[in-house]
Amino acid sequence: MVKHLEANLPEGISEAAAATRGRTLAQLFDLDPRRTERLSLAWEGWLVDFSKERITGLGLDALLDHAASVSVASWIAALFAGEKVNLSEARPALHTALRQTDDTPVIVAGDDVIPMIRAVQARMRTLALSLRNGERKGAAGAPIRHVINIGIGGSDLGPRVVCDALASASSRFDVAFVSNVDPAHLARTLRSRVPAETLFIVTSKTFTTQETIANARAARGWLIAALGGDCNVGSHFIGVTANVEEASAFGIAIDDILPLWDWVGGRFSLWSAVGLPIAVAHGFDRFEQLLAGGARMDAHFRSTPFSQNLPVLLALITFWNTRVLGHDQRVVVPYAQALSGLPAYLQQLSLESNGKRVTRDGSGVAGPTAPAVWGTTGTDGQHAFFQWLHQGTPTVPVEFIVPVRGTDAPCEQQVLLVANALAQAQALLQGVSERALTLRLGELGGAALQAAVAARTCPGDRASTTLLLPTLNAFELGSLLALYEHRTFVEGILFGINSFDQWGVELGKTLTPPLIAALGSSSAPFPLEVDPSTRALATHARSLLAS
Amino acid sequence: MVKHLEANLPEGISEAAAATRGRTLAQLFDLDPRRTERLSLAWEGWLVDFSKERITGLGLDALLDHAASVSVASWIAALFAGEKVNLSEARPALHTALRQTDDTPVIVAGDDVIPMIRAVQARMRTLALSLRNGERKGAAGAPIRHVINIGIGGSDLGPRVVCDALASASSRFDVAFVSNVDPAHLARTLRSRVPAETLFIVTSKTFTTQETIANARAARGWLIAALGGDCNVGSHFIGVTANVEEASAFGIAIDDILPLWDWVGGRFSLWSAVGLPIAVAHGFDRFEQLLAGGARMDAHFRSTPFSQNLPVLLALITFWNTRVLGHDQRVVVPYAQALSGLPAYLQQLSLESNGKRVTRDGSGVAGPTAPAVWGTTGTDGQHAFFQWLHQGTPTVPVEFIVPVRGTDAPCEQQVLLVANALAQAQALLQGVSERALTLRLGELGGAALQAAVAARTCPGDRASTTLLLPTLNAFELGSLLALYEHRTFVEGILFGINSFDQWGVELGKTLTPPLIAALGSSSAPFPLEVDPSTRALATHARSLLAS
Repeated sequence: MVKHLEANLPEGISEAAAATRGRTLAQLFDLDPRRTERLSLAWEGWLVDFSKERITGLGLDALLDHAASVSVASWIAALFAGEKVNLSEARPALHTALRQTDDTPVIVAGDDVIPMIRAVQARMRTLALSLRNGERKGAAGAPIRHVINIGIGGSDLGPRVVCDALASASSRFDVAFVSNVDPAHLARTLRSRVPAETLFIVTSKTFTTQETIANARAARGWLIAALGGDCNVGSHFIGVTANVEEASAFGIAIDDILPLWDWVGGRFSLWSAVGLPIAVAHGFDRFEQLLAGGARMDAHFRSTPFSQNLPVLLALITFWNTRVLGHDQRVVVPYAQALSGLPAYLQQLSLESNGKRVTRDGSGVAGPTAPAVWGTTGTDGQHAFFQWLHQGTPTVPVEFIVPVRGTDAPCEQQVLLVANALAQAQALLQGVSERALTLRLGELGGAALQAAVAARTCPGDRASTTLLLPTLNAFELGSLLALYEHRTFVEGILFGINSFDQWGVELGKTLTPPLIAALGSSSAPFPLEVDPSTRALATHARSLLAS
Repeated sequence: MVKHLEANLPEGISEAAAATRGRTLAQLFDLDPRRTERLSLAWEGWLVDFSKERITGLGLDALLDHAASVSVASWIAALFAGEKVNLSEARPALHTALRQTDDTPVIVAGDDVIPMIRAVQARMRTLALSLRNGERKGAAGAPIRHVINIGIGGSDLGPRVVCDALASASSRFDVAFVSNVDPAHLARTLRSRVPAETLFIVTSKTFTTQETIANARAARGWLIAALGGDCNVGSHFIGVTANVEEASAFGIAIDDILPLWDWVGGRFSLWSAVGLPIAVAHGFDRFEQLLAGGARMDAHFRSTPFSQNLPVLLALITFWNTRVLGHDQRVVVPYAQALSGLPAYLQQLSLESNGKRVTRDGSGVAGPTAPAVWGTTGTDGQHAFFQWLHQGTPTVPVEFIVPVRGTDAPCEQQVLLVANALAQAQALLQGVSERALTLRLGELGGAALQAAVAARTCPGDRASTTLLLPTLNAFELGSLLALYEHRTFVEGILFGINSFDQWGVELGKTLTPPLIAALGSSSAPFPLEVDPSTRALATHARSLLAS
């Protein structure tokens, strides 16, 4: 059952929604022979097809009018101009400046940030090169062979998704990522590494993130235990942070601290020095290709009419699915093992940006905001949750992301992979009817036939979008990630919210310290303010920890 | 906003639901001082607390009555007795027999299956031992050091989640998992492996699964390219399958083919020979501990009154959240890096089992069935999607899974990890009010204060369940996985569906071959039956593949 919300919607959108109500996707295809042409876009070898979404050309026109009426164009201009689009923190959001290919000034608080960016990029290039050619050595004189990134959230998911995606390129480096405060994460990662040959990149804007600092300290302890406290274990660390003082106090040399700026949000930061693991693992040239791919999408986003503008179009589809059709989730399925980290990356990007309930001026939003985003790679998902997509009771729009030529040399299996993606989208749309199954299973007869047909029937009429990319290299990947960044931004404008803050994560931080104190000592008094459930859980956990 | 569906519900449940409507969780705690006691269960060192769910003791009583009225007890008895609970395929579902610790006969079609199971377990023990002690050698005479499991869905997710979870134990083996038909998955995995020292376990019930057979063939090609076609590359393979003929034709020796039976479903199969990678990586003794942990939960499930029965209670919570409150998703967050594979495993278990729309007799279900299941490890999720959990517009019940003592030696960071889990559940419940924030931020004043307070307010009143486990070893993990298996089964009974088939995945399989043909050759005619969208996508993909 598809719900229609239609409350608080602009009139044009309500009218277009009314025209689709009660119609199947198959009927919408029949009614408009030009449907696929109107509801898809070819761009730079890509094909983005949203004609299997439950929308019409009329609906899209109404959405485009709405985008104009809520000043999407001005917001885009403000984003690129470095205006303080992050209102609640009074900051610009200038991830686009990080991938700008020319040196056109971008002014923040009176200063051009481009020369600052170029200087950091030069340092990243030098650092990556010295690690890759073995010049940079550890305290015991051995060249570095293992690089471990310590960071969480945006300091982990962004560089990780890129490093994974490009891993087909050979690298003499073994780059690993440690994020979780669970001590097992670091311990397991260190097990196969040699201390004298291991370098840690510690990334935290504040250099106070609990997980990151706990892991950085544990890493330092591991180095000291192996190399001795007398040697300069600080030389096994690079810091990426806005807090030079703390990083320096930790023991990292000033020359090994790369800056972060408050005009780059964590989940938009892989293009900054946070991307150092990418440059180390795959070379700075490839990092630059990534930036260039992002810049290509920036140019498209900034200057293309909305009717041909990929991030805007995809954001409008989200708005329609959320506000008109009431979907509270969206499934993403990249058909590429190299993109196995993409769903987690998109989850953070979308949900931390747009999981909000008040508008920029503090009033309640007029309707639902970000739907859940989750998924896994195809074809694996087909053997896991696709049963539910085809025959479950919730109907959830799916996004198929298909780099057609993949990362590796072409081969027969690649055709299987792509065919599977298209077949699944087709199956969701088309379903299989009782009539077709009855013909096929007719020999059974009677109640057995009826039960067999009922179990096999797929209702179809389930929506999806398919993105075909020519291939998966650093350049195309840069465009893909920037596409989702801008889409998320436009979704935020359409919802009326600020996509660049994340105040909802603060409360948990303030509730944790009293629980740490209570759990850590069997004699400490319990925090007074906890509810009976939390008290019972803490009491039980404390007794287990002490046993 | 919490929806109340309440259509087609038993009267007692409707009444209990009506009594909670309009009340916050905080109010429910105030109304019943014994709430946490009534809505939680201690068992074998575990504490499972669902008192933060939006239900009352009265509601639970009504649910327990409902469980009795839909014959949950008979279904449980039928499951263990080997009756054909999988009606649409006329098969028993006897994963419990696989972990039975004694030799009480279990009869299927006139034969006791227990001696068959014992015989296979003896072969698994011998095989695992010969690999672990280096007796089993490759065709070139080298001992095996790398084991690669080739399988997908249940032949991948189950053994993988266990191997990952237990990885803290030292192993001379490097065990990897390849599932995706994407050729990059196998290629990347092989890159760091030595052909002469690599053994593949190929798991497919039918030995015709497209992904698995394509990867097995590619693996054989890799061995032949390195070792030559003259040597016995078949000795580098073990088959786990019900189709001995096909596996033998592939070149696997009869002695190296372990059986699967049609009374074990793929997503319940890690306890069978599908679990061989576990026995190889961690030893057969540890595999037996896993089985024993599963058997402990079986005994609990089979013989405990429903009011104290963990799988039944958790299934009732799902039923309430789905049918009464209308939630169409559930988030699971294991606070243990070792359980990073658990959300994907639970996703398959739940969604492939209960993503259904017809009852066992073929009529339409009376209401929604399985909600989406997704999640990631804590604390990582806190830096990704928890913003959305705290301040997003959809409200989604969360499940915190916390092995309190973890896998590794105790240390300070473990306390941080557990405290974070409890603090997040507390924050979801409690929120932070405008009033508290106004007091804290009062110095701002005026519109700035109002905006700052609005952005920081968390409504709270968001539901969760917390499972505390004493630790994470093979035995406790066995109980945890069996708990979720049985919970899924009981959910299926409550929904009135068959949890053991998966007809919804068949349609995609029939639509794929014509697309493979169309994409694979630039001259082949296009399949006639495709919709205009699929045609446009296939045309574009074909041109990219040919370029």
